[in-house]
Amino acid sequence: MLRHLLRRNDAKIILLVMDGLGDIRTAEFPKTPLEAARKPNLDALAREGLCGRSQPISYGVTPGSGPAHFALFGYDPLAGENDVGRGVLEVLGTGYELERDDIAIRGNFATIDSNGILTDRRAGRIPHEDCIRLCAKLQDRIAEIEGAKIVIMPVREYRFGVVLSGIRLSPEVEETDPQLTGKAPLAPVARTPEAKRTAGIIAKLVDQCNAILAGEKRANAVLMRGISRKPSIETLQERTLLRPAAVAAYPLYRGVAKLCGMDLVDTGFSIREEFETVRSVYGKDYDFFFIHVKKTDSFGEDGNFEGKAKVIEEVDANLPLLLDLKPDVIVVTGDHSTPCALKAHSWHPVPFLIHSKACGIDNARAFTESECDRGGLGVFPATAIMTLALANAGKLKKHGA
Amino acid sequence: MLRHLLRRNDAKIILLVMDGLGDIRTAEFPKTPLEAARKPNLDALAREGLCGRSQPISYGVTPGSGPAHFALFGYDPLAGENDVGRGVLEVLGTGYELERDDIAIRGNFATIDSNGILTDRRAGRIPHEDCIRLCAKLQDRIAEIEGAKIVIMPVREYRFGVVLSGIRLSPEVEETDPQLTGKAPLAPVARTPEAKRTAGIIAKLVDQCNAILAGEKRANAVLMRGISRKPSIETLQERTLLRPAAVAAYPLYRGVAKLCGMDLVDTGFSIREEFETVRSVYGKDYDFFFIHVKKTDSFGEDGNFEGKAKVIEEVDANLPLLLDLKPDVIVVTGDHSTPCALKAHSWHPVPFLIHSKACGIDNARAFTESECDRGGLGVFPATAIMTLALANAGKLKKHGA
Repeated sequence: MLRHLLRRNDAKIILLVMDGLGDIRTAEFPKTPLEAARKPNLDALAREGLCGRSQPISYGVTPGSGPAHFALFGYDPLAGENDVGRGVLEVLGTGYELERDDIAIRGNFATIDSNGILTDRRAGRIPHEDCIRLCAKLQDRIAEIEGAKIVIMPVREYRFGVVLSGIRLSPEVEETDPQLTGKAPLAPVARTPEAKRTAGIIAKLVDQCNAILAGEKRANAVLMRGISRKPSIETLQERTLLRPAAVAAYPLYRGVAKLCGMDLVDTGFSIREEFETVRSVYGKDYDFFFIHVKKTDSFGEDGNFEGKAKVIEEVDANLPLLLDLKPDVIVVTGDHSTPCALKAHSWHPVPFLIHSKACGIDNARAFTESECDRGGLGVFPATAIMTLALANAGKLKKHGA
Repeated sequence: MLRHLLRRNDAKIILLVMDGLGDIRTAEFPKTPLEAARKPNLDALAREGLCGRSQPISYGVTPGSGPAHFALFGYDPLAGENDVGRGVLEVLGTGYELERDDIAIRGNFATIDSNGILTDRRAGRIPHEDCIRLCAKLQDRIAEIEGAKIVIMPVREYRFGVVLSGIRLSPEVEETDPQLTGKAPLAPVARTPEAKRTAGIIAKLVDQCNAILAGEKRANAVLMRGISRKPSIETLQERTLLRPAAVAAYPLYRGVAKLCGMDLVDTGFSIREEFETVRSVYGKDYDFFFIHVKKTDSFGEDGNFEGKAKVIEEVDANLPLLLDLKPDVIVVTGDHSTPCALKAHSWHPVPFLIHSKACGIDNARAFTESECDRGGLGVFPATAIMTLALANAGKLKKHGA
């Protein structure tokens, strides 16, 4: 980012991210979901806009959701300071204000059998109401361990967050999740001598939680993951002079947005609700709106082609809610690809479109992978997206005389 | 640049730069000037050559003319040492040999009213003859201020150059141009304590100039801009072993070429005159010819679509003058885009073609933005152009066994 080029103006930018949007054609899947979906509004944007394929990290590198979003927001996804623990992201995503020395943990409610062997790492995906009830139950009986204050908060379904506050804490502790059923949860192991105290506190916390949960049918144990501390990251306001708002329903994405300095706006989960939320704050003093649509990724991970195509159609059907706002710049892309054929995140570059008065019209005739391959941007680094958006919004001055 | 790969041979390279060549399609401008212009010779070169889109600096970054040309010549346009002041470029462009410690300034003749308020920053774009006359008048009465030798030279129309030579001078002085009419010119302010003496000299110079010009109707004041010192830049001869000549009529481009070590050839302003100039020195000991065509940019900045297309047609009509020379390599591109719809420089990558026996023929069927998007080079950094030209000229050896 070329800071000396930045200038403020009133132009507004919408960044619409469909998680895991990119897909691939294979013998088994001769079309991609974007190719199969009926989506006249997105196709019109692509036809009148500029297209390409954004590469989240590098050739052949499959990103997790955190790094993929950091890249979208213009941060180097491989830089050490941007390698943020999942615990931090989930806790921030709940709206909790982490302090610099706090330790954040992402917890899973899980099921163990009478021998202490894991039978379900997600406690049968208990409903969110159970998550709230169980977190309250744990918090009610656990306030402090060895001088460290303990805060336990619901995240979503089987996921919860834990914050340890106090002196002499360290995030250098291994997770307790063995990642497989049929094994007992692991002990929290300190990676450094300084982390021994923290590992001991987490071990006691796990024991106390499991004792309190002993009567539960499904959520009778906890796993501790992503033990981490909030890094000091330059905010988007500092880096771009933007005044950013995030409309994302899922905690992880809210966490990344929060860490980058965005205001988190409360929103419902459906696409329509998210777009209505954007409309409700559009007139305020924001000039950048990050919108996160989750389900394209979820269906991709399930290999559910129809489901993924339907989400794209739902986005398209609701798109007029955003287009009626007449944003100066609208970007539509994904954070990474999640091909139905692979049922997992992948390294394939992501369909991308940008639309503004200044974008220039290219050869792409629709918003699909293969048409984006014909676009004027070629394959380009996702970290360039913010710069392109700023340029199209007239928020960058000329470099040099 | 991979210096260990360089080898000399007699192959000749022509780099034809149409300033601000790139353009964009918009609703208002459904074709670009390149798409509208009749240009059979350029289209044939594109069809038989290799095309792409060269990116002057980076995604979304709009270059000034200086950085854009440094990139074309293979220099990192963002490196501090290549951030050259406009004063240096304009003075070098007149052919003046700047010494290392000299301070170079770009002057504007301007108009002020009886209260000293600027009414025209360009003195009504006085003719070049007036510029010559006024510079002679000023030089005649000002030879030295506080021990610093003063040289005043005409550049073009309302623009002139000033060189201060002497001891204890510093370029760390702010411009006196307020960039807006309706304001008084600014005082030259020292940015560092060491620059106070120089700021004082420039203040006296301005006062003396304005006193001498008091009787003029339009050019009755001066503005001092781009106060700078020549950086030490490795020449193209050193970096590439090329023996380069520059055929450029406008001072700024002559200045950049000179700074990179090119020989400046005297030329007329028209495209025909420039191409004839190339022919006149083609048999000499040069193997690289930079040709600069200015008017594509000027018309782009005016939003004059027809004008820009006509310049392209004029280049095409005169192109046989160059092609008859049978250069081993010919490159045609721009330094940056200046879309008619934006009336300004922009960040959009620039149409590019290279033609040689070794270039390889790609899918581009004409020399336009959208056909270059189909070209074999894709979007690539402008700093790679020199290396590509050298390779096509057989001037680069194999790297490794």
